[in-house]
Order: sequence, then structure tokens, then C-alpha cells
Amino acid sequence: MSKARLEAFSDGVMAVAITLLALDLIVPTPGRVPLLTQLGDHWPEFAAYAVSFFIIGIIWVNHHARMNLVARVDRTLLFLNLVLLLFVVLIPFATATVAAYLTTGSTDSHIAMALYAVVMEGMALSFSAIFEWSLQEGRSHVHVPARQRRTTRLRTSIGAVLYVVVFVVAFINAPIALAITGATAIYYMFAPVPRGMPAIEE
Amino acid sequence: MSKARLEAFSDGVMAVAITLLALDLIVPTPGRVPLLTQLGDHWPEFAAYAVSFFIIGIIWVNHHARMNLVARVDRTLLFLNLVLLLFVVLIPFATATVAAYLTTGSTDSHIAMALYAVVMEGMALSFSAIFEWSLQEGRSHVHVPARQRRTTRLRTSIGAVLYVVVFVVAFINAPIALAITGATAIYYMFAPVPRGMPAIEE
Amino acid sequence: MSKARLEAFSDGVMAVAITLLALDLIVPTPGRVPLLTQLGDHWPEFAAYAVSFFIIGIIWVNHHARMNLVARVDRTLLFLNLVLLLFVVLIPFATATVAAYLTTGSTDSHIAMALYAVVMEGMALSFSAIFEWSLQEGRSHVHVPARQRRTTRLRTSIGAVLYVVVFVVAFINAPIALAITGATAIYYMFAPVPRGMPAIEE
Amino acid sequence: MSKARLEAFSDGVMAVAITLLALDLIVPTPGRVPLLTQLGDHWPEFAAYAVSFFIIGIIWVNHHARMNLVARVDRTLLFLNLVLLLFVVLIPFATATVAAYLTTGSTDSHIAMALYAVVMEGMALSFSAIFEWSLQEGRSHVHVPARQRRTTRLRTSIGAVLYVVVFVVAFINAPIALAITGATAIYYMFAPVPRGMPAIEE
Repeated sequence: MSKARLEAFSDGVMAVAITLLALDLIVPTPGRVPLLTQLGDHWPEFAAYAVSFFIIGIIWVNHHARMNLVARVDRTLLFLNLVLLLFVVLIPFATATVAAYLTTGSTDSHIAMALYAVVMEGMALSFSAIFEWSLQEGRSHVHVPARQRRTTRLRTSIGAVLYVVVFVVAFINAPIALAITGATAIYYMFAPVPRGMPAIEE
Repeated sequence: MSKARLEAFSDGVMAVAITLLALDLIVPTPGRVPLLTQLGDHWPEFAAYAVSFFIIGIIWVNHHARMNLVARVDRTLLFLNLVLLLFVVLIPFATATVAAYLTTGSTDSHIAMALYAVVMEGMALSFSAIFEWSLQEGRSHVHVPARQRRTTRLRTSIGAVLYVVVFVVAFINAPIALAITGATAIYYMFAPVPRGMPAIEE
Repeated sequence: MSKARLEAFSDGVMAVAITLLALDLIVPTPGRVPLLTQLGDHWPEFAAYAVSFFIIGIIWVNHHARMNLVARVDRTLLFLNLVLLLFVVLIPFATATVAAYLTTGSTDSHIAMALYAVVMEGMALSFSAIFEWSLQEGRSHVHVPARQRRTTRLRTSIGAVLYVVVFVVAFINAPIALAITGATAIYYMFAPVPRGMPAIEE
Repeated sequence: MSKARLEAFSDGVMAVAITLLALDLIVPTPGRVPLLTQLGDHWPEFAAYAVSFFIIGIIWVNHHARMNLVARVDRTLLFLNLVLLLFVVLIPFATATVAAYLTTGSTDSHIAMALYAVVMEGMALSFSAIFEWSLQEGRSHVHVPARQRRTTRLRTSIGAVLYVVVFVVAFINAPIALAITGATAIYYMFAPVPRGMPAIEE
């Protein structure tokens, strides 16, 4: 199994998943309710769509940054990568659930947003597992000294910690929890890469 | 992040989005209304399908023409490209909405077509932003002299201006606005490339 | 625009279209009608699915055989290729329509099958157009002498003629028209390649 | 037809099929039934999703391992590969059917699980056919001695045998049949590769 194939397959899955997000946007139907009102009522769909779109986008960017360092592919990596993709593919489902419940104001709006956080947590933890796998001798192109390892581990763990926060905030205010998720995705997009880490251009 | 990966991912998203267009063609159901009548009643679906198909096709062609010139990928380009894809992925949704409302003859038919123009405008502006990004020193393989820069900027802006026109026409006559969009996509397909610009063969 | 990109995009669209075929298989729902009865009643869906699957498969094989010979990509080829893909992407829609009407025994079953033939004809004609395009001086890697040109043109036209036959048979017996389509796809899969034509291995 | 294209197309189909699995997860709708109850009632969907996800994942891994050895592509291989993909693309349909019936406790729950086993059996047999094809002189990069051939044939047949077992167990206890399928997929993921067989890294 070459690394190129692993990346191509992962890219394919992520490209399909990011496009399927739009399938859950409910097409308005002509009838009594004016079109603009229907679109307005569905704002949580559009918000959730945009947030999830950038999250999958950032996963894709980070996935490549990580894979660039990997020197060889073994079955454990294939398995961890499948688990990661399993959660990525669940994102459209979680997004549609949040969109359906976000403005109901009921307990379920909190639970829907918490479910979203759980899917993201699964994704973040799979990513951390791939990172830990890559630290073992001979699995990466570059030797990461112990100190940098800590910095990088910290950086990689931010996602996992963040989604725990989102999970908690979900039970206080679901829309704010969604906004935090979106803001973090944008932040991550431009976050400075720590020294010694491979720059994105490489 | 190599340019090849950016292109491959964008290709994947556009290939899925262009194919999803056909998912919104409502499959006729056996019953009282004859099949031909059903197909005839659904002509806006087929018209909107064809127009959007060529628009995504032309985006794909132009995306490559632009990326061919890019010398290096940074996070800003990744972000702008994601914004572009976010609008591309919205095209099937906007297309289905136009198809549902085009022949209702109500105010909503105008609003549906205007919504379509807004999605296209978002796409055109993302494209212009990528172009402006590419003009900075060191980001492109070729140095574009100030004069040509103006010509190319003009050419790139045509789309952004066009969709403002489509937006306005939408409120006068929605089907004509759709026809203008389609005609322009076909025109763009064969439009002569200004001298000094990279030919498509390169 | 490199040929490799054109092929990759076309491959992507065909891979998505062939997979979307299965989306139109109606998942049975628990209720009064036993599962086996439901599956049995839906046999036209499975038959149409299998036929369309092999047709898209054979288009994909032929597309590559043709593209292998192409020496350079211009806007006309890009446009013809988009028209070809437009019909490929319509195949799941046409398949679902045939599946819905095939066993209704009404006039509409004939019309549904005729619609299927029309989509296939559009696809075959786009393919012929691409072939004619490739004959012009300098567009192919190999010079095809006038005589072979005629043989190859004949071979390429078989599809276009076949679907006219299928169209006619559709009005006599729709299931037989579908069976003819399927049989031809399988035949084409193994049809000997005329001498002088590029073998599939190349 | 180059091997690279065959692999890329197969990868594309599998990437779409694995992502479409999530489309069959029914998005809960706000109403009388609490969200958590709805999610709980739908546990067979999530279980079937996870099992099918890993099965398609393992098919993908094995497909590459096999294709790595193939020296040249002919029409028979193209055909066998299409048959394999035809069954892969049916997996989301079979998965959704199992998910709908698994907990109905009726005869149909057994039949749904048996249908699932039939689709998997078709996939496993296509895989065995590709293996037998590859044994012929000149079709593989490596010469497989008669003895190893037997070992490898045995290994390749495990899937085909397994799904017969799953088929039988389906009529005794459908959830257990599903669990066996999932457990085997995970086992296969980590199963040691017999000596002389190409390791996954190559």
C-alpha cells in the first residue's frame, strides 16, 4: 500500500463528504410560505453547513500535513485512518441533526449539538492516535526531538480538548457552541505553525 | 501542501457537485399524469440542470488555468479555495430551488433566480480573490506586467459583473435571467484567450 | 489543461455517476408486504441498475481508449467532453424512470424506455463527435489512414445506431429493449479490437 | 488501459460508496419522540453503518494488495473488476435494508440479513475470480509457486466461505450474523500476511 494511494482514497472520501453536506439543505417548495421566509427559517441549516464545510476543509489540510511526514504505511495506520474517515463521513449526518434541532429551543437542541461535538471528538481523537503512531522510530521522515514532540502533541490535542468544551457549552447554549466550533475552524486555518514543524508549502 | 493535491481535491469536489445536479431531477412516478406531461412540466429542472452543468464545467476549466500559474500554495490560498468550493457545492441547491420556482409566476420565481445569482456571485468573487492573491510577487510562475494585469483583471471580473446583471434581470424575467447565465457559460467556453495569457494547451 | 486532468475529472464524474445508480434502489420498508415480495416486485430496478452499471463501465473503458490517442486538449474537446459527461450524469435519472415504469404495462412503460434510449443516444453521439474531432491533423498521436478511419468510424457509430434500434424496440416491448441494451454492453466489453486500433493494454 | 487508471477508478467508486453509507442514516426529526430515544431506536443503523464501513475499507486495502501484483490489464480483468464494483456499490443498499429490518424480530429480519450476506458473497466471489485470473502465466509480476498458490487461494476463499456462514446464521439470529461480519472485517484488517505474500508496505 503506497502512501499516495492512502492519501488519494482519503481525499476522495473527504471530497464526497464535504459535497454531501449540501444534500441536507432542504430545497424550499412552492406553497403558502414565501420563499424568503422559508430560507430565513432554515438559517441553522446554512450556518451548520458553513461550519462543517470548513471543519472538513481543515481536516483535509491537516491530514496532508501529517501524511507528508509519514515514511511508511502499515496496517495500524490504515486502520486508524479508516476510523478517522468513519467520523468524517458522519459529519453530514451530525450537521443535519444540529440543523433540524438548533432552533427548537428544547432540551433536544442541546443534545443535538452535543451529538455533533461527540462526532468531532471522535474525529479529533483518531487524529491524535495517528499522530502518536507516527512518533515511533522509523515511521516518520523526520526525527522529532522530545521537546518539539511535546509542543506538537499539545497542538494536536487542542482539537480534542476543544470539542469537550463544545460538548459542555452545547448544554448551556447550542448556537454559541456551534459558533465556537466555526470560529475555531477559521482560526486553525491561519494558525501559525510552530517552529521546527513542517511548513504548509513543503 | 502540494499544488497537485489542492487541484486533485478541488477536482474531486467539482466532479461530485456536477454529478449531484442530476439528483435533483425528480423521477416521475406512475399514476394519473402521463409520463410525457410530467417530463414536460419539469422542463425548468432540465434547463436549470444543463445551465448549472456547464457553469461548473467552466469553473473547473478556469480553476485549472489559474492554478497552472500558481507557484506555491499558502494558507490564504487554501482558505480562498475552500470559500470558492463552498459556493460551488451550493450550486445544486440553488439549481433545485430555481427549478422548483421558475414557472410558478409568483414573486418567488424572481427571488429564486436572484438566490441563484447570489450563489454565482459568491463563486465569481472567490475566483477574483484567488486572482488578486496570485498577483503578489513570487506567487506565480510568470510575472504579469501591470498592463496585462489590468486586462486579465477585467476578464476575471466579467463573471462578477455578469451575475449582478443576472440578479437584476431575475426581478424582471426569471427564465431570461437563467438563459443569460447559460449563454454566458457557453460563450466563456470558447472565448478567445487574450494575448500573453497562458493558452489552455499549456 | 493537461490530458491527465481531463481524464481524472471524467473518471471522477463517471465513478460518482456509477455509484449514484444504487441510490435509486428503493430500500424496502417494514410493513404488511413481506420483504421478499417487495424485492421481487422491484426486479426492474435491479435489472436496470445492472444494465446501466455496465453501460457506464464500458463508456469509461472506451473513453480511456480514445483519450490515449489524443495528443493535445483544446476548448472544443473540453466542450464535447462536458456534453458527453452531461449525458452520463443523466443515466441514473433515466435508469430510475425506466425502473419505475417498466412493469406498469402502460404506454408510459414504452415512453420511459424510449427516454432511456434518447439519453444513451445523446451519449453515443457525443462520443462520435469526440472521435471526429480527434481525426483532424495533429490532434492524435497516431496518423489514422483513410481506410482504417472508415472502419473505426463504423465501429464508433455502432453505439449510435444501436440506441436508435433500442428506441424503436422500446415501443414494441420495453423489457426486451432493456435486455438488448444490456447484452450489447456485455458484448462490447469483449468485442475484438480491429487490427491497427490501439489494444486495450497499451 | 493502464493499471493506474483501473485503480484510480476503483478507488473513486469505493470512496463514493463508503461515503454514501452515511446517507442512509435517517436524520431525526423534531416532534414527540425525544432525540435520544430516536437515536437509540436507530442503533441498528449505526451498527450496520460501522460494519459496512470497515468491510468496504478492507475491500479497498485488499484490492490494492492484489492489483500491486498484476502485470497487465486485459478486458477480462476489466469485466471482473466491474462485477466486483457492482457488488461494492450495492453494499449501501443492503446495509440500509438490514438496518430497517434488524430489530423487527420478524422472518424478514432474517431475510434482510441473508440478503446482506448474498451481496457480500457476490463481492467475495468476484474477488476470488480476480485472484484466479491473476494466476495465469504472464499476468502477475511474481511467479507464485503451486504450493503458495494453494495457501493464497485458501486465504482468498475465506471471505467466500465466511459469507455462507453469515447467510446461515442470519436465519438463526440476524444481529449475531451482523456482529460476525463486523468482527471478521476487523480481524482481516490485522491478519498476518502469509510468508511469500507481498507485505502491505510494498
